Amino acid sequence: MTTNDNPFMGYSGRIATQDGVYSQSEVGLANRNSGILLETLALDVTPTGLHYLLTHFDVPLIDPGQYRLDFSGGFNAPFELDLDEIKSLPQVTLPVTLECAGNGRSGVSPRSHSMPWAYEAVGTSEWTGTPLKPLIERAVPNADAVEIAFLGADYGFDKGVGHCFGRSLTMTQIADLDVMLVYAMNGQPLLPQHGAPLRLIVPGWYGMASVKWLDRIEALREPFDGFQQVRTYRFREHDGDPGRPVTTMRVKSLMVPPGVPDWGTRKRYLEPGPVTLLGRAWSGGGVPIAKVEVELDGEWRQARLEPQISRYAWSKWTCDWSASPGKHVLRCRATDADGHIQPLDPPWDVSGFANNAAQKVTVFVGEP
Amino acid sequence: MTTNDNPFMGYSGRIATQDGVYSQSEVGLANRNSGILLETLALDVTPTGLHYLLTHFDVPLIDPGQYRLDFSGGFNAPFELDLDEIKSLPQVTLPVTLECAGNGRSGVSPRSHSMPWAYEAVGTSEWTGTPLKPLIERAVPNADAVEIAFLGADYGFDKGVGHCFGRSLTMTQIADLDVMLVYAMNGQPLLPQHGAPLRLIVPGWYGMASVKWLDRIEALREPFDGFQQVRTYRFREHDGDPGRPVTTMRVKSLMVPPGVPDWGTRKRYLEPGPVTLLGRAWSGGGVPIAKVEVELDGEWRQARLEPQISRYAWSKWTCDWSASPGKHVLRCRATDADGHIQPLDPPWDVSGFANNAAQKVTVFVGEP
Repeated sequence: MTTNDNPFMGYSGRIATQDGVYSQSEVGLANRNSGILLETLALDVTPTGLHYLLTHFDVPLIDPGQYRLDFSGGFNAPFELDLDEIKSLPQVTLPVTLECAGNGRSGVSPRSHSMPWAYEAVGTSEWTGTPLKPLIERAVPNADAVEIAFLGADYGFDKGVGHCFGRSLTMTQIADLDVMLVYAMNGQPLLPQHGAPLRLIVPGWYGMASVKWLDRIEALREPFDGFQQVRTYRFREHDGDPGRPVTTMRVKSLMVPPGVPDWGTRKRYLEPGPVTLLGRAWSGGGVPIAKVEVELDGEWRQARLEPQISRYAWSKWTCDWSASPGKHVLRCRATDADGHIQPLDPPWDVSGFANNAAQKVTVFVGEP
Repeated sequence: MTTNDNPFMGYSGRIATQDGVYSQSEVGLANRNSGILLETLALDVTPTGLHYLLTHFDVPLIDPGQYRLDFSGGFNAPFELDLDEIKSLPQVTLPVTLECAGNGRSGVSPRSHSMPWAYEAVGTSEWTGTPLKPLIERAVPNADAVEIAFLGADYGFDKGVGHCFGRSLTMTQIADLDVMLVYAMNGQPLLPQHGAPLRLIVPGWYGMASVKWLDRIEALREPFDGFQQVRTYRFREHDGDPGRPVTTMRVKSLMVPPGVPDWGTRKRYLEPGPVTLLGRAWSGGGVPIAKVEVELDGEWRQARLEPQISRYAWSKWTCDWSASPGKHVLRCRATDADGHIQPLDPPWDVSGFANNAAQKVTVFVGEP
């Protein structure tokens, strides 16, 4: 096979086509990956099956009875654990909001050729597992270890590079972020597509850090140079930019589109009169939401905020509106306790990562 | 609002753009609706959360404690049932394969502007509920009733028509097809997105018949004229054609794409040597699969068939192949016990319904 024929070099980056026109492979990714239905933002916990799913390669189907998690290279006291042993360790259940780093990509122009998410790559689940930190300490990383690497069982190609999905964290990040090894979701055994039998959950970070189908853990003397750490999931200003790593989630809010939809266009129709808008807001790294504002008829109004159900879960907000006949464009934006506020326009990134621009919802009020 | 401004008239049908180029609203539908991951065709039962989902409007979030199923208009002995009463009726669990009538639409040219499914709109779940027929008999349809209508709680617009999703069946169809009222899926309470708290399951038919969020049942003196019965889900040769109703699923087979994928293009890479291909095959109306053939290196070879796990569930097939270096296009096709065989090219339909053309999987064998 010549280099030109090589089907595994992937695509070259940005898209030459106009905004609003998508390629076959983008639609293939949209058919394969799936997001939340925005109307279920009304619920504290995303119904099982509606949490977003971004699957880089194929879902490995792993026999839980044969499963072993291997703490191997770079540890002074390496060991293996089977699933029963992991389940016998101290158990924690934590509601965590996860968002895909590529959420909002279709709003960034020019658009990077990848999964064309609009707003739907988010979800909140109750994850059950055991804290990671004590296990790392038990394995005793080499004295000169700088990072811990997490390698999944899923294998495939990206830009011509064959690799298992893998990511790394520092020991400080593992401790500060309450990182967990997870075997259950919403009170049920972890589903194959969510990383069964065991996955990482890194609360407060974009989803790429929460490695699924966790196969082995290694302590590293040099920073991890795996594809998913150094070749992608980086903010880049231009194509040659080595970039900065994508880490914690940016502050963001979403609303349940009010009224009822048209099937094909998803345009919204609403009867005139009072309506309570509602949605969710979240930020990264365990930083709480300070404020949500909703733009109604040209005026930003402050929404009511409900308490979070956990440090790492989204907050519910509500806002009353009196809908008058005509076409309205509603927007919502959140501010977190560190003072970060959502921008009104998409922040630029070559790969379309972390677009947290305020959601726009167009509503037609009156006779349909 | 003038007619030209009316956002609820929907789109006009076929698409003028070239094959392989998709519109913003098609991608919006692909982001919102979701299908199976083909690698999970290895499993008898589709993991919860990977069964395909085609949601016409918004998912209604219904309080199961407040739920009532109403047998109303057209019955001589009308009654209501709450969820506990329905659960106290005779219980049946049945594995059923459901496929969306629009599955394969993106392969039909010119393409209808709707959800651009490729192959993924299918799934098999274990549905638990109670048979419908005894309840219809208990409500005693009027002597001149010709059909029973099933109306959902989900409301929206399609081509300017506001309506609750609704469908109808004849009494003969209800009896012959083992139609069920379903409140559980894969041993768990029905999820909101699958029709909670109660839905219809019509085994052997395309999915549009299995009305979700079932609100009321009516006996009709005239054939049902609801939008989803007479304006869509019909085979039409051309735009003015009144068409024939879409009913039972056509014979179809799918394979798990062998090897490993490239992330963005989903192209497949496989090492040379022996490989066992596998997949699933099904037909409609409870007709079993008689034969599955796999095209390997220009030759159609018969696959091994495993027994169905129920009359209405897909059959597993396997086929051995010795993969030689180079590019290969694999295809599979099934024949059912009535002698229907999958075509090699997509059957024409204006709306792209029921495209059961043989799946094509391109595999690159050798050094990536």
